[in-house]
Amino acid sequence: MLASSSSVLRRQHFLVRSLCVGGCGNRKRLHDIRSMACYAEAENILRAIIPPLDRSKYKGQAGKVAVVGGCREYTGAPYFAAISALKIGADLSHVFCTKDAAPVIKTYSPELIVHPILEESYNIRDEEKEQISVKVLAEIDKWLERFDCLVVGPGLGRDPFLLECVGQIMSHARQRNVPIVVDGDGLFLITENPGLVNGYHLAVLTPNINEYKRLVKKVLNCEVKDQDAHQELQLLAKQIGGVTIMRKGKSDLISDGDIVKSVSQYGSPRRCGGQGDILSGSVAVFVSWARQHSSATGVDSTSQMNPTVMGCMAGSVLLRKAALLAFVSKRRSTLTSDIIELLGRSLEEISPAC
Amino acid sequence: MLASSSSVLRRQHFLVRSLCVGGCGNRKRLHDIRSMACYAEAENILRAIIPPLDRSKYKGQAGKVAVVGGCREYTGAPYFAAISALKIGADLSHVFCTKDAAPVIKTYSPELIVHPILEESYNIRDEEKEQISVKVLAEIDKWLERFDCLVVGPGLGRDPFLLECVGQIMSHARQRNVPIVVDGDGLFLITENPGLVNGYHLAVLTPNINEYKRLVKKVLNCEVKDQDAHQELQLLAKQIGGVTIMRKGKSDLISDGDIVKSVSQYGSPRRCGGQGDILSGSVAVFVSWARQHSSATGVDSTSQMNPTVMGCMAGSVLLRKAALLAFVSKRRSTLTSDIIELLGRSLEEISPAC
Repeated sequence: MLASSSSVLRRQHFLVRSLCVGGCGNRKRLHDIRSMACYAEAENILRAIIPPLDRSKYKGQAGKVAVVGGCREYTGAPYFAAISALKIGADLSHVFCTKDAAPVIKTYSPELIVHPILEESYNIRDEEKEQISVKVLAEIDKWLERFDCLVVGPGLGRDPFLLECVGQIMSHARQRNVPIVVDGDGLFLITENPGLVNGYHLAVLTPNINEYKRLVKKVLNCEVKDQDAHQELQLLAKQIGGVTIMRKGKSDLISDGDIVKSVSQYGSPRRCGGQGDILSGSVAVFVSWARQHSSATGVDSTSQMNPTVMGCMAGSVLLRKAALLAFVSKRRSTLTSDIIELLGRSLEEISPAC
Repeated sequence: MLASSSSVLRRQHFLVRSLCVGGCGNRKRLHDIRSMACYAEAENILRAIIPPLDRSKYKGQAGKVAVVGGCREYTGAPYFAAISALKIGADLSHVFCTKDAAPVIKTYSPELIVHPILEESYNIRDEEKEQISVKVLAEIDKWLERFDCLVVGPGLGRDPFLLECVGQIMSHARQRNVPIVVDGDGLFLITENPGLVNGYHLAVLTPNINEYKRLVKKVLNCEVKDQDAHQELQLLAKQIGGVTIMRKGKSDLISDGDIVKSVSQYGSPRRCGGQGDILSGSVAVFVSWARQHSSATGVDSTSQMNPTVMGCMAGSVLLRKAALLAFVSKRRSTLTSDIIELLGRSLEEISPAC
C-alpha cells in the first residue's frame, strides 16, 4: 500500500509539474508555496473532522444526508451527490425527487433510499397545487429531523411549482437547524429569493462561475471583479447574513463573511458535468462531521474555524485529489463516475482508516 | 505505459499483417503506402484540433453536444452516440428522445442528460399533433443555441410524425448555425427530403453502404459505381450544396464536394451494430473542436481543410483504432460497448493528454 501510494504520489507530482504551463519565476513559486500551504491546511482539517471508526457505533452515527433533486430531465446529478456521500463514509443517503425520476435513480444504485414525492407543474392541475404542496411538506417533515445535512439542487430543474415546494422544504429545514448545502438549480432558487438562506449560518452555497456571477449581480448589484476575488466573496457572504459560500473555479474560494480560505491543489483539467454534484454530496458529509467534531471538542476549537468552512475545505481537497487520480488513469475520457470510484482511495490516502 | 503501448502496437501490427489476406504484389504495397499516408494525415488532424487541457477552463468549453434519437424501439443507438462524445472529451452530452425511451437511456448512464420530449404517432391523436409539434419545438429551442453540435438519427425510428418534428428541429438548428451530423434514420429523413440539409455547410452525413445507395439513387438518380467512388462521392456532396458526406466502408471516404479524403487504417472485422453510433457521436465532438481550432488559428489554416472534413477524418481514425484494440482483446465477441471503453486509450495513444 505504501509503495503504491508513493508511486501514485510521484506520478501526481510529475503530472502536476507537467501540467503547469508557463514559466517558473518567483511569482509562480510563491503561488505554489501558498497553494501547498492551503492544501496542507485542508487535508489537516479533513483528518481532524473525520470520525474515528469504532466498533461500538451504530447505523446513522457516521452521517445521514438527503439530496433534494431529480426531476423529469435530470437524474444523474442527484445520484452523483447521494452516492458520493456514501462513498466517503456516510451511513445513509436519501434522495427526494419527482415521481418520474425516482425509478431511474433507484436503478443507478440499490444503496440509496429514494423518495418519489416531488411534483412538476406539467403533471398536475392548478387546483391541485395547494393540496399537493401540503402533502409534499408533510412527507418530508417526517424525515427532516433525522438528517445531519440536506443538499438542495442537484438536478432539481426549474419548474416554478417544484421550486416553490423546495423553498418551503428549505424553510422547514432551517426551522429545525438542519444544515443545507445549495448547488445547481437550488442556486437559481436562492438567486431569485436570497431570503431563503439570508442569515442562516448553517447554509452553504457552492456556485460555479456562472452561478456566482448571477449571485453577485443579484446581491451586490455589480459585475464580478476577478482582481478582488477574496474581498468580493467575503462581502457577498456577509451581505447574505453570514452564509458560507464556496466559489468553485481554478482555485476554490470559501468564505463565511468572516474569513476567506482557498483550496488550489491541482485537480483534473477535465470539466465533465457532474463534478459539482460530487462536491455537494461530500461537503454535506464533511459539514456534518465538522459540526460533530466542533461540538465534541468545544466551540470551534480547531483553529477557531466555522464548521461549514471546514466542511467546504475538506470537500474541495478530496474532490481535487480524486479527480486527479481519475485523470491519471482515464485521461481525456475521465467521467464523473470514474472520480466517484476514487473517492475512497483518495480519502484513505489523506486519512487512513486505521 | 510506454512499454505496454509498444507491446500493444506490436500486437496491432502483427494482427494487421495477419488479417491482410491476399498477395503482396506491388499494387498492394502501393495501396498500403497510400493508406498509411491517409492514416497519418487523419491522426495529425486529430492532434491539431484536440483542445489543450487547461486548468482555467470551465464546464462546457470542451464541447456540449446533443443527440436527437431514441424511440419506443431503439434506445442503445442514442446512448452509444452520446456516451462516446463524453468518452472522447466533451463536457456535456444530451439526448432528446421519446417519453418511452428516456427512462431506459437514463439508466444506461447517469452521465447523460436525457430529455423525454419527442412523441410517436401511436401515442397521440391526430388532432393533438399540431399542438404537440409546437411544444416539442419550444422545448428544444430553449437548448439549441447552447450546443456545439447536434447528432440527428441514432435510434430515431421511422414514425412519420416524429420525423416531421425532427425535420423542423433540423431547420431550427440550421437557422442558428449549429452543425448537424446525420446518421441512421436521420439519413432516411434526408433521403426523403434532401432540402433539409441542401446548401448547409455545417451538415455532415455519415451513410453506410445501403444508406449511401439510397442517397445516390435519390440525388444523382443512378446506381452506385464502385470504380468511380471518389468522383461519385464528390459529385453527390456538391449536388447537395456542399454538405460533407462520409461514405462508411472498408475505407471511409469523405468529401465536401471540393476535396475527397480517405481513411483506411485497419479497424475491426467485427460488424456488430452500434459502431456507426460511436462514429456519429465522435464526429460531432471533433467537428466542434475543428471549428474552434479553425476560428482560433484563422480560417482553415490547417491544410486549408473544411472543419467538417477534419472532424470526419478524426472520428474515423479514432473509431478504427479503438475497434482494432477491442478486437485484439475480445475477438469475435467484441461488442460496441467494448469499443467505447477503448476510445479513451486510443485517443491517448494518438494524442497524449499531457
